Amino acid sequence: MKNTFGSQICITIFGESHGPAVGAVIDGLAPGIKVDMEYMKKRMEERRPQGGISTARRESDIPEILSGVFKGYTTGTPVTLVIKNESTKSRDYESISDIPRPGHADYTAECKYHGYQDYRGGGHFSGRVTAALVAAGAIIRCALEAKGIYIGTHIARLKDVTDRGFVELGADIAALDGMEFPTLSSEAGERMQEVILAAKEDGDSVGGVLESAVIGIPKGVGEPWFDTFEGVLSHALFSVPALKGIEFGAGFGFADMLGSEANDQFISEDGEICTSTNNNGGINGGITNGMPVIFRTVIKPTPSIFKPQASVSMKTGKATRLAISGRHDPAIIHRARAVVDAVTAIAVADMLTVRFGTDYLAKKD
Amino acid sequence: MKNTFGSQICITIFGESHGPAVGAVIDGLAPGIKVDMEYMKKRMEERRPQGGISTARRESDIPEILSGVFKGYTTGTPVTLVIKNESTKSRDYESISDIPRPGHADYTAECKYHGYQDYRGGGHFSGRVTAALVAAGAIIRCALEAKGIYIGTHIARLKDVTDRGFVELGADIAALDGMEFPTLSSEAGERMQEVILAAKEDGDSVGGVLESAVIGIPKGVGEPWFDTFEGVLSHALFSVPALKGIEFGAGFGFADMLGSEANDQFISEDGEICTSTNNNGGINGGITNGMPVIFRTVIKPTPSIFKPQASVSMKTGKATRLAISGRHDPAIIHRARAVVDAVTAIAVADMLTVRFGTDYLAKKD
Amino acid sequence: MKNTFGSQICITIFGESHGPAVGAVIDGLAPGIKVDMEYMKKRMEERRPQGGISTARRESDIPEILSGVFKGYTTGTPVTLVIKNESTKSRDYESISDIPRPGHADYTAECKYHGYQDYRGGGHFSGRVTAALVAAGAIIRCALEAKGIYIGTHIARLKDVTDRGFVELGADIAALDGMEFPTLSSEAGERMQEVILAAKEDGDSVGGVLESAVIGIPKGVGEPWFDTFEGVLSHALFSVPALKGIEFGAGFGFADMLGSEANDQFISEDGEICTSTNNNGGINGGITNGMPVIFRTVIKPTPSIFKPQASVSMKTGKATRLAISGRHDPAIIHRARAVVDAVTAIAVADMLTVRFGTDYLAKKD
Amino acid sequence: MKNTFGSQICITIFGESHGPAVGAVIDGLAPGIKVDMEYMKKRMEERRPQGGISTARRESDIPEILSGVFKGYTTGTPVTLVIKNESTKSRDYESISDIPRPGHADYTAECKYHGYQDYRGGGHFSGRVTAALVAAGAIIRCALEAKGIYIGTHIARLKDVTDRGFVELGADIAALDGMEFPTLSSEAGERMQEVILAAKEDGDSVGGVLESAVIGIPKGVGEPWFDTFEGVLSHALFSVPALKGIEFGAGFGFADMLGSEANDQFISEDGEICTSTNNNGGINGGITNGMPVIFRTVIKPTPSIFKPQASVSMKTGKATRLAISGRHDPAIIHRARAVVDAVTAIAVADMLTVRFGTDYLAKKD
Repeated sequence: MKNTFGSQICITIFGESHGPAVGAVIDGLAPGIKVDMEYMKKRMEERRPQGGISTARRESDIPEILSGVFKGYTTGTPVTLVIKNESTKSRDYESISDIPRPGHADYTAECKYHGYQDYRGGGHFSGRVTAALVAAGAIIRCALEAKGIYIGTHIARLKDVTDRGFVELGADIAALDGMEFPTLSSEAGERMQEVILAAKEDGDSVGGVLESAVIGIPKGVGEPWFDTFEGVLSHALFSVPALKGIEFGAGFGFADMLGSEANDQFISEDGEICTSTNNNGGINGGITNGMPVIFRTVIKPTPSIFKPQASVSMKTGKATRLAISGRHDPAIIHRARAVVDAVTAIAVADMLTVRFGTDYLAKKD
Repeated sequence: MKNTFGSQICITIFGESHGPAVGAVIDGLAPGIKVDMEYMKKRMEERRPQGGISTARRESDIPEILSGVFKGYTTGTPVTLVIKNESTKSRDYESISDIPRPGHADYTAECKYHGYQDYRGGGHFSGRVTAALVAAGAIIRCALEAKGIYIGTHIARLKDVTDRGFVELGADIAALDGMEFPTLSSEAGERMQEVILAAKEDGDSVGGVLESAVIGIPKGVGEPWFDTFEGVLSHALFSVPALKGIEFGAGFGFADMLGSEANDQFISEDGEICTSTNNNGGINGGITNGMPVIFRTVIKPTPSIFKPQASVSMKTGKATRLAISGRHDPAIIHRARAVVDAVTAIAVADMLTVRFGTDYLAKKD
Repeated sequence: MKNTFGSQICITIFGESHGPAVGAVIDGLAPGIKVDMEYMKKRMEERRPQGGISTARRESDIPEILSGVFKGYTTGTPVTLVIKNESTKSRDYESISDIPRPGHADYTAECKYHGYQDYRGGGHFSGRVTAALVAAGAIIRCALEAKGIYIGTHIARLKDVTDRGFVELGADIAALDGMEFPTLSSEAGERMQEVILAAKEDGDSVGGVLESAVIGIPKGVGEPWFDTFEGVLSHALFSVPALKGIEFGAGFGFADMLGSEANDQFISEDGEICTSTNNNGGINGGITNGMPVIFRTVIKPTPSIFKPQASVSMKTGKATRLAISGRHDPAIIHRARAVVDAVTAIAVADMLTVRFGTDYLAKKD
Repeated sequence: MKNTFGSQICITIFGESHGPAVGAVIDGLAPGIKVDMEYMKKRMEERRPQGGISTARRESDIPEILSGVFKGYTTGTPVTLVIKNESTKSRDYESISDIPRPGHADYTAECKYHGYQDYRGGGHFSGRVTAALVAAGAIIRCALEAKGIYIGTHIARLKDVTDRGFVELGADIAALDGMEFPTLSSEAGERMQEVILAAKEDGDSVGGVLESAVIGIPKGVGEPWFDTFEGVLSHALFSVPALKGIEFGAGFGFADMLGSEANDQFISEDGEICTSTNNNGGINGGITNGMPVIFRTVIKPTPSIFKPQASVSMKTGKATRLAISGRHDPAIIHRARAVVDAVTAIAVADMLTVRFGTDYLAKKD
């Protein structure tokens, strides 16, 4: 049980919301990966608070690289990224540290860390830590793209507003790249933002469903048992804060289908075996089949709301009511997609490196 | 990337459908766990083909224990379970080994193993291998029960038939124990079986949704990042064949909720802090909060159907049509629940052992 | 902490001396490795008791393969080897199970397993379990040889008898292959056997020093920190029973050298960079440099001796004297070499697979 | 294969000699460990260059703690230590980066990293990185001492000068604490330093043998196969730069002993079972027996010497001669002991945490 992920590309993330910094160490990256800071900046932008629907905390968030990069390329040794915390208002956390916020990890942190946790601003559980994930993911994702592997995520649903599905994967993924509020239909995106603003006005929050696609993954990656492609990817993705479910291909929709509808039949296209449908989301028996990997994840509504809620003093057990103040997002789903993309890149790169060896990510084919 | 799971309690499963045996090695079990073969038999029965809705393959499936058990108790050294394959009809697999069955792993096996895979009856991908998972899970689950930790799963939905939800968890879990077709409402169960038989008559198959509950798990288990309770459990559960999605607590339903509806507010009950609702399924920030762990998984329709389907010769790339014959289940969801329970037991026991040390499972409190 | 080794090629060994069987599961082997049972038999012979200097226990020891091999080749899925225990005399172990034998693991087994251990014949600590290691190692070693990587070990020293050192590595390794009592000088071998027989007559036992060489390992394998080539190999080798030390290259002799004597200077030979000496045993900074990997290990004298020794009842704490009877080796060093070779093959193959990907062992160059 | 160590307490070290910083991330530390910066400073002092026998590079080396510590105690989340590089002279490394230094990792770095490595001052292979190990080890070792577990190391031999052995372990370990040149006999220490200075004057260098003791380790820690106590500790210790061998208890001396001399006979002392001798160095069958853990390691002579040596251009393969200039230690053995102590603390703490659970290090007994 660790805050470290990966068999070959091993990432540990660290830091607390109001500590000196958050960051990541990535061990096992191939030597010779180009570290493109412009690319990383773009990815960091996708995660940053945007416009009227996000928190007021704004930090430059450009990571400092402490190790593992030399003359613009990875050296093959552990890469350390550090993002200083600049904007940590010194509020009076002591007074509220005893009252756990509903939907947050305050109470489970107490159960696990027995009072030693840094409770300021969520501490190690803060969404702030995902900045390190996105930065680390950016280095890896850039290398994946050089191998022809692309990742894209859109908000498939937010309350009763539904985005259109993927049609042309290459073009759709390209269109989502860098988009502030990532939907395939701009009209759906506008309506979703209206829903978010309505919730915000009400002191409330919303969640939603993300749909992701990965194209270009070689066939034959994943294991039949335990380290299935789905299992390894899911393992990583549940680190995305507020993510509470994942489904591949037709997912929960399989419960409505017959076998004759669900099975993806095989066809031959340009001398390559593929399937005429993709209900299995690119994976059979835990192993990639060459079709795009498609999955959906659900993000629960941001737990920080301004409506008063019931809570209990952890010291005395006495019931109380809690009203959260300060800066908070009425929705994080548009920012969560940057984290989903980053974590997906990390997990996919790890599986590829296991399969093809430690130089894979930088190797010219 | 391995066919091995676990940080402390490490399980490797092995075997092929038509090879000499399937089995499991479990390393890291505490010494002093009682190995109750009657209990194991009951668990194996839950997985075995039942009545008119299951395959004709019937084997006694009582595992032989080759190591790690002495005088009826685990010794603390690796436990090896072997289940001989008795009923492997020697059909002509050669002739069809080149034509991958839609929805199966035949094609991905070829991509990964380059022709060396044992293609007879699905080989290592066969559901047969889950017998070993259930046997291994039985030893662990029995030890969990001795610590007051119980697991139960019912078929929550099968096409348009919906079972009632959990009400009294303790009683509901007890009622499901050993049930052939596990539903909480017997009427729903009967209607589901009708749906299965209708599909069977049509040469087709169905899937469904399982809902599981784990009660009695201590608070404070799981990690904030990567080895989250959800992540580790999901990692393991995607090894259940045909499982294509998982959601915790309100799961994908979170997309329809506001934060004020989704947050579980804290209350004090009998001096213990708990929550008034359990939308988070017993987990906040990746860590157990003492409420029951609740999750749902989706099982896709059995890929083996009798309707002819399109496929392609892997050698020549030529299109062909495939009609599967032989014995096959029109539904496996009622049997899959035994595997879900077993894998859940394995993953939970591993997380508990990490948290509380290698003697935990056998330690008297 | 596990009875499992390896990052990519993962091996778990199981079994007890007087249980039904010993065996191994090997996960992560490439598909397409030829499984040569004649080769394996030869390796098993190297480990078997020989002539007058070894225990009387004789078993055929040919492993049954339960999984992962099809038509004579590995499938890429876990390979399970089982060696039945045939010759387990049912002696009265109960009466002596309370008195730990000096130099054995009886007492530490009690400390760790709290009385649940199988104490008959050393249980899981028995040298018998190494039969599984040698069998597993044989499959791997055969695959390494197909890649031009050869391993050889001789008895470098046994009390005051010293074997000659390696001269022509290729020829020396070939000469050791299959040798019953592996020394490079046959005269030294004879004198060593006389020393062993003298100890035997005295009811005593001896140990010795093994020297091993691995040739043909590619350059650039190993990590600078933690998973150094030396560290990973040592980790595995301390599983060889009675092995209490390891040194690479000049080893402890470095303490007598100056830097100017110790440094291996670089030269160019046939367009390949190599070193004029090999004091570093083929490894610099934890990474292979292309020179032969050379290491020595020490095997302590067999703890089972016939002289009476002091011991203590684990139940009462009362002092007593213990006289061991039964069949026991006055030396195991000549058999230990088979285990050293096997474990070396396992560790080397794991490191190579990490470096070059999961198909490496079977891939044609 | 990773630059990360540990099953439960996981440490990754990072950084390059002439990059911005070196450091470590430690995941899996119990919450509530007191972080004593004075204690850490003392440990860092033991590693720092001292007097006339060490390099001129002097840096304050006090690590900055970026995460995982709050109000002076570990929080239970990853602890990140960063030590800035202050004293990195910008020499002309380009001109010599092509000529590998004998005994160093320059050539193997090239083999592994294909020219992307940071070659300045040894890069990631620099002894400088051990500052991070010692800092990380200090936090852990301080926690071990609070549990009654103490570690001490002295220079047992340096060329022909031999220190006295351990007599009273508690007192001897206390005496070594903080000692600049750690020997048990001050006279031996003086003579060793004379040998070092003589080598220095000659532009040469020396190595030596360290002997370490760990007292207070509970019985029953370690596994019978693979994760033996010796194996796990050795795995970690080969990360100490220049360490080329390790032996436990009587070690290579076992080759000179008979079984009757080597076996540690059991006695009862104050109601506790122990052994009358400790030839097995506190470990039987891979598991601690309650006696002090005793081991010796060999440190090769510092490879940086001022005598001209043969080398080869890695680009052209042309032979050349290399004269190393700059600041270099004629011996590092007295500094290496701080690293041996630190790494031992890390490995021991990991094994204890596996055995007794994640809170062990901070738990009051």
